[in-house]
Amino acid sequence: MAEKITPRHVDYSRWYTDIVLQAKLADYSPVKGAMVIRPNGYAIWEMIRENLDRMFKESGHVNAYFPLLIPESFMQKEAEHVEGFSPECAIVTIGGGQKLEEPLYIRPTSETIIWAMYKKWIMSYRDLPILINQWANVLRWEMRTRLFLRTSEFLWQEGHTAHATYEEAEEETLKILDIYKKMAEEYLALPVIVGRKTDAEKFAGAEHTYSIEAMMQDRKALQAGTSHNLGQNFAKAFDVQFQDQDGNLQYVYATSWGVSTRLIGALIMAHSDDRGLVLPPRLAQRPVVIVPIWRSAEEKTAVLKYAESVFEELKGQYRVILDDREQYKPGFKFADWELQGIPIRLEIGPRDVEKDALVLVRRDTMEKQFVARKGILQTVTDELQHMQKDMLQRALKFREENTFQVDDYAEFRKIVEGEGGFIESHWCGDAACETRVKEETKATIRNIPFERKKESGKCIVCGKESQGRVVFAKAY
Amino acid sequence: MAEKITPRHVDYSRWYTDIVLQAKLADYSPVKGAMVIRPNGYAIWEMIRENLDRMFKESGHVNAYFPLLIPESFMQKEAEHVEGFSPECAIVTIGGGQKLEEPLYIRPTSETIIWAMYKKWIMSYRDLPILINQWANVLRWEMRTRLFLRTSEFLWQEGHTAHATYEEAEEETLKILDIYKKMAEEYLALPVIVGRKTDAEKFAGAEHTYSIEAMMQDRKALQAGTSHNLGQNFAKAFDVQFQDQDGNLQYVYATSWGVSTRLIGALIMAHSDDRGLVLPPRLAQRPVVIVPIWRSAEEKTAVLKYAESVFEELKGQYRVILDDREQYKPGFKFADWELQGIPIRLEIGPRDVEKDALVLVRRDTMEKQFVARKGILQTVTDELQHMQKDMLQRALKFREENTFQVDDYAEFRKIVEGEGGFIESHWCGDAACETRVKEETKATIRNIPFERKKESGKCIVCGKESQGRVVFAKAY
Repeated sequence: MAEKITPRHVDYSRWYTDIVLQAKLADYSPVKGAMVIRPNGYAIWEMIRENLDRMFKESGHVNAYFPLLIPESFMQKEAEHVEGFSPECAIVTIGGGQKLEEPLYIRPTSETIIWAMYKKWIMSYRDLPILINQWANVLRWEMRTRLFLRTSEFLWQEGHTAHATYEEAEEETLKILDIYKKMAEEYLALPVIVGRKTDAEKFAGAEHTYSIEAMMQDRKALQAGTSHNLGQNFAKAFDVQFQDQDGNLQYVYATSWGVSTRLIGALIMAHSDDRGLVLPPRLAQRPVVIVPIWRSAEEKTAVLKYAESVFEELKGQYRVILDDREQYKPGFKFADWELQGIPIRLEIGPRDVEKDALVLVRRDTMEKQFVARKGILQTVTDELQHMQKDMLQRALKFREENTFQVDDYAEFRKIVEGEGGFIESHWCGDAACETRVKEETKATIRNIPFERKKESGKCIVCGKESQGRVVFAKAY
Repeated sequence: MAEKITPRHVDYSRWYTDIVLQAKLADYSPVKGAMVIRPNGYAIWEMIRENLDRMFKESGHVNAYFPLLIPESFMQKEAEHVEGFSPECAIVTIGGGQKLEEPLYIRPTSETIIWAMYKKWIMSYRDLPILINQWANVLRWEMRTRLFLRTSEFLWQEGHTAHATYEEAEEETLKILDIYKKMAEEYLALPVIVGRKTDAEKFAGAEHTYSIEAMMQDRKALQAGTSHNLGQNFAKAFDVQFQDQDGNLQYVYATSWGVSTRLIGALIMAHSDDRGLVLPPRLAQRPVVIVPIWRSAEEKTAVLKYAESVFEELKGQYRVILDDREQYKPGFKFADWELQGIPIRLEIGPRDVEKDALVLVRRDTMEKQFVARKGILQTVTDELQHMQKDMLQRALKFREENTFQVDDYAEFRKIVEGEGGFIESHWCGDAACETRVKEETKATIRNIPFERKKESGKCIVCGKESQGRVVFAKAY
């Protein structure tokens, strides 16, 4: 609290780190590349997890848990997968005091160990579909830590489903993408562009990958979730066949999909301000703080009694903080809760008690409102709902203002190398053009949006025919 | 389902494994020592976690997440701790394709990494107490797997708290033990003996350890949870001092405590029977199954309509399964749900429809009752509550019938080496006597019960003075 947050316009990257550290969301650990998720940050993850888990279960999914350690030989069974992940792995070579015969990899993702089990469990079409999700830690070696955004170890959920047909697998892949979009927009207040990744950017081992992409306040993109149609690649690698209804043996179709603690980084970067965290109400475990204000002992008695009655009225519905700490001044308390992103602050002073009123301050707008004591539960509920909606709208407006349709490569480069933003440009579909853009500007194709217009045009790089625009941006 | 469960009296150990595998609670994995927790087993863990987590939060605890990998030098800072855990560790020596300068241990427990962080976070008495819990995977090298009971990797919660005084730490240690007792008795329906471990059996690095101990159906003991008062041991090892209210520097006092997926093994072994799993209702995500029975198409229409109305009435309150699968006979369905431990089965046939009634079968007693259709929600609620209570009472009675007060070592050995059970005997407090019993009989002192009578007696081994009885048993 004594420290000051670096303003966004001075240094966006330091601003982000200042918020994470000062709001006690996470901390650096003594283990290179790994972070500690502190209680304030973990509470956000719990809210994300709870809501996603409910949506997964409502759509027929169940949770399970697979081993952390994967034998080296498993990692090597799917060619693209091993190439994509092996260089990033942490490897156990000693166990119980002995050198191991076969090294064990800490899972960077669990396709291989899960498909080794599915081989045991799947015999016939009656065993399908399998709709399993896992909440787990994974590890991908990384030395340059950015808290939440890029760390060796992170927490995530990974779904791994098995189906009898390609169509069912594709349907599942899209169903999950829709849940991710809902999570992003309705909970994180983060508008996202839903689309397909290019072949260069797809998951190592997938037929194709879909993603949701969000814009941060520095106009860079952040991939907030991916859903993969794995085709029969893993079934073939692990020889998982089933007997279909006609008695024929067929390889099983697969999907996998995941979101991670990275989402916490996304929501900080999308909504927060120079005072600290701004948390969407639906992700706040504690959405309301009451700060009583007094100068004399007499005032204190009256104000506290009144504050407690408000607390009592709200607490059935919300986890409310009543900040009656003696050792801190109101101004200090305001700043403290603003830093931590509590959505609504209720201030109660002696004059409010007299008027049977209180002051309500919304964290996103910082506007003060005088509201009546009567009906305070409804007032708070309404404000939380408005705030949730307004945050999404504001982020959407920001994205729209920073999205550009560009048909000229020089202009494209000027934007990418200047203020940045999402650039909608034509692309011929050739990986060479994609690579050239990436090498020259560091911008990548975020995805090929589902909702793009059919529109003839010319590739921004080579000038060849294109049927529609894709979204380019620099990304986290 | 085609397989048969080995009866308990034939082979208790195979009976246990048969239930775990056939009820699809867990499976062996291709990684030595590690298991897969399948959806049916994970659902039980979710219920345990949800309820424990609520109790932790109600008593002021918060969750956080610390790194999986611990530098070797950290493991070595607390002398007893390193001796206790180092031989059991899995060690990462390669990361990102490079040999690591310092090996990293997969956490066998997290005291060391957490106290390294507490050193950063604790300056003054104002920073205390810290009441943090973590839900995580841990790993202790183990080649002889017993599903749930003994596996290398397991899931658990580990609480790590920091306090200004010894008394506060002790109070915390006991508060948690009380939560564990409540969890065991009110949710797992498992009566437990609460007490202190002997020095030989305490946690590596603790001042003292408390435990809850339960009796399984083979009369062996299972330690179902432990809570440790760590004194200032870890604060000293990691040099964590705080400025107290008088301005003096003092070492911080610590506790740690945990329960694991082992609890699932305990509840299987305590309650299940030769038909399969018997699950206490409060841990069943799906406590009710409805099985409609028909022979003709006409009967089918009437029975299904009736069954659906029952389903609708119950589903607001309970996750109910309506098993209307065409391809299976009722007898098959009964056996399938019995195996999986669904607490209440409702059978509905044509005659039940006529009589406006149904058949209710409780999984624990397997007794059939004819109950009225009217008020079925209340009937089911009552039966679930009775079942929960009866299961605890039955387990308590079993424990009492198999607990013996013994004052003669020959008789002691006869019981331990025969049928087994809990043996309450006098012990002088000398580790030598404890060791002798363990070496000669494999029985250990489970704990020194809080509720033991003050009673003068003579040590069962050496005949020296004793002030009360302790509980001996063979244990898992």
